[in-house]
Amino acid sequence: MRFGLFGTTQSDAGNPGAEAGQGFRSFVEFNVEAEALGYHSSFVVEHHFSGWNQISATLNLLTWIAARTKSLRVGSAVMVLPWHNPVLLAEQAATLDLLSRGRLDFGVGKGYRYSEFHGFGVPMEEAEARFDEALDVIIKAWTTAGRFSHRGKYWQFEDIVVEPPAFQKPHPPFWMAAGSAVSIRRVAERGGNLLLDQYAPVPVIGERIALFKAEVEARGRAFDPLSVAVARDAYVAKDATDKLAALERNAKSRQRIVEVSRVPGQPGGSHVLAYEHTPAAREAVALYGSSDEIGEKLEALHAVGVRYILASFAGSNDSLRRFAREVASRMRIGQ
Amino acid sequence: MRFGLFGTTQSDAGNPGAEAGQGFRSFVEFNVEAEALGYHSSFVVEHHFSGWNQISATLNLLTWIAARTKSLRVGSAVMVLPWHNPVLLAEQAATLDLLSRGRLDFGVGKGYRYSEFHGFGVPMEEAEARFDEALDVIIKAWTTAGRFSHRGKYWQFEDIVVEPPAFQKPHPPFWMAAGSAVSIRRVAERGGNLLLDQYAPVPVIGERIALFKAEVEARGRAFDPLSVAVARDAYVAKDATDKLAALERNAKSRQRIVEVSRVPGQPGGSHVLAYEHTPAAREAVALYGSSDEIGEKLEALHAVGVRYILASFAGSNDSLRRFAREVASRMRIGQ
Repeated sequence: MRFGLFGTTQSDAGNPGAEAGQGFRSFVEFNVEAEALGYHSSFVVEHHFSGWNQISATLNLLTWIAARTKSLRVGSAVMVLPWHNPVLLAEQAATLDLLSRGRLDFGVGKGYRYSEFHGFGVPMEEAEARFDEALDVIIKAWTTAGRFSHRGKYWQFEDIVVEPPAFQKPHPPFWMAAGSAVSIRRVAERGGNLLLDQYAPVPVIGERIALFKAEVEARGRAFDPLSVAVARDAYVAKDATDKLAALERNAKSRQRIVEVSRVPGQPGGSHVLAYEHTPAAREAVALYGSSDEIGEKLEALHAVGVRYILASFAGSNDSLRRFAREVASRMRIGQ
Repeated sequence: MRFGLFGTTQSDAGNPGAEAGQGFRSFVEFNVEAEALGYHSSFVVEHHFSGWNQISATLNLLTWIAARTKSLRVGSAVMVLPWHNPVLLAEQAATLDLLSRGRLDFGVGKGYRYSEFHGFGVPMEEAEARFDEALDVIIKAWTTAGRFSHRGKYWQFEDIVVEPPAFQKPHPPFWMAAGSAVSIRRVAERGGNLLLDQYAPVPVIGERIALFKAEVEARGRAFDPLSVAVARDAYVAKDATDKLAALERNAKSRQRIVEVSRVPGQPGGSHVLAYEHTPAAREAVALYGSSDEIGEKLEALHAVGVRYILASFAGSNDSLRRFAREVASRMRIGQ
């Protein structure tokens, strides 16, 4: 099994004496240590207007992390295409890919938070169409040697050559989050890699991987098990009390994400809301517990086809280390 | 006198065997060495669609440079506001400012190249209004503690809080390029620092500094001579033949910039076209020659009020070093 990081951080550590940006700087050091511990990659989110100092300029933070590391792949999970001028985004991502000698995993998505669509003045019902058009422009930008024009519904570009070129050819790998059968099919159609979220129960993960495999093979391509990455919250607990307290903290941060995913005055909203959010459901999907407990959970994921885990340690250096030394190393041998 | 770098580079070094991105990586090392040699700052351009692999994702390249340095200030010269969503730009710049512990010099401008306006589908006649509105949004984003909305002509944002905050308070210093009396007055009004271009002859530089000083003081603020930075092409020549060859190369790259600044089928266009571009005019403004010749030229600039030079060495490591050791060190003592 392959292990990477999935996560977010806050620019300020939260404690009143902290220097501005201390949270970001600690996160950079966290990633430097992760590389030394053998983690393969680090995927970070893009969010806006949350009020809790989240990562908003994802590619800038990843650029700094890449400059401080040698082999760690840096990933976005995900760049929300409806917010970005696709040409500027292609240039920014290519610059990072070049400087890092091809270490960018370019995760892209269409967004799900009402507050972000509202803030940017983008109607939620345009998300899909904007995503598709932006992705088309980005692919064209990275694979067209000369000049081209684009006259789309949302974007128009005239006689442009997008530079610099990316390092990876034909372009950095795309990673796309998907839950529904329709969206998984689209990822296969686009030739992207698949990101599965931290809330889906193990049997659902298995179904999604099986569907993605079938869709990829139906298109005449070989399925690579490492083309699917599964996000999981993770915490290596000292004992049962420590585990319980960590699950409480996990419940709170999960609740915050659920809240921010709602559309005011409407039922439904984000896919996040479709999952059960009971304590039992939370504990079932979280890699929380002793090394042995986590090992068992990973075996269950392995059994349904998971070969690549993106672990979110909520900033716990202790868990980062113990997971690498006591859990991940064992899983690698097991494979 | 204070010395920084002004410049650009190409992602590929141009020679066929070069690894993709080698030009960017050499430029990073150039900046690392510049810091060690005592240069104060490095300002880099933002350009698009030139076809010669220029820097397009300026803040990403600066982020990498800042991650590799400790004290060097990193500057944009300039971010062209009409291309950017001002909220995304504020987030990106603040992230770099935070990670670098306040080393960002935020140069902003309204753009001058027809090919870029045409490519992005932005009418040139909207440049000024778009610049003003974007700058208002960025300042609001950096100085508003809570949420705000913006309903402008070009941008609308609803109930947003722009995060992370910048490190420098109240915000990173703005640098603005200006040539005409009207635009110099605007920089003073905005409270920005002034960038003067590499083509303006010495007496014109003197007039512009005097005007800026008067405009700043007319607004009741003290004038800081270091709030004006003057860009100059620079080359420390081995002998007269070497100087002549370098001036030939300089003429070519200058001609390329002149060409790209024209509006097809129209007279006028960019301010770049307003200067004389004869060999004598070029030699008069370029800091090209022996250390002694350059020293004399710097004395002339000093005499009209210049205290901060941004030197463009066109990638010559030899000039970078000799300028620092043989020219700049002497000027520092002279002050």
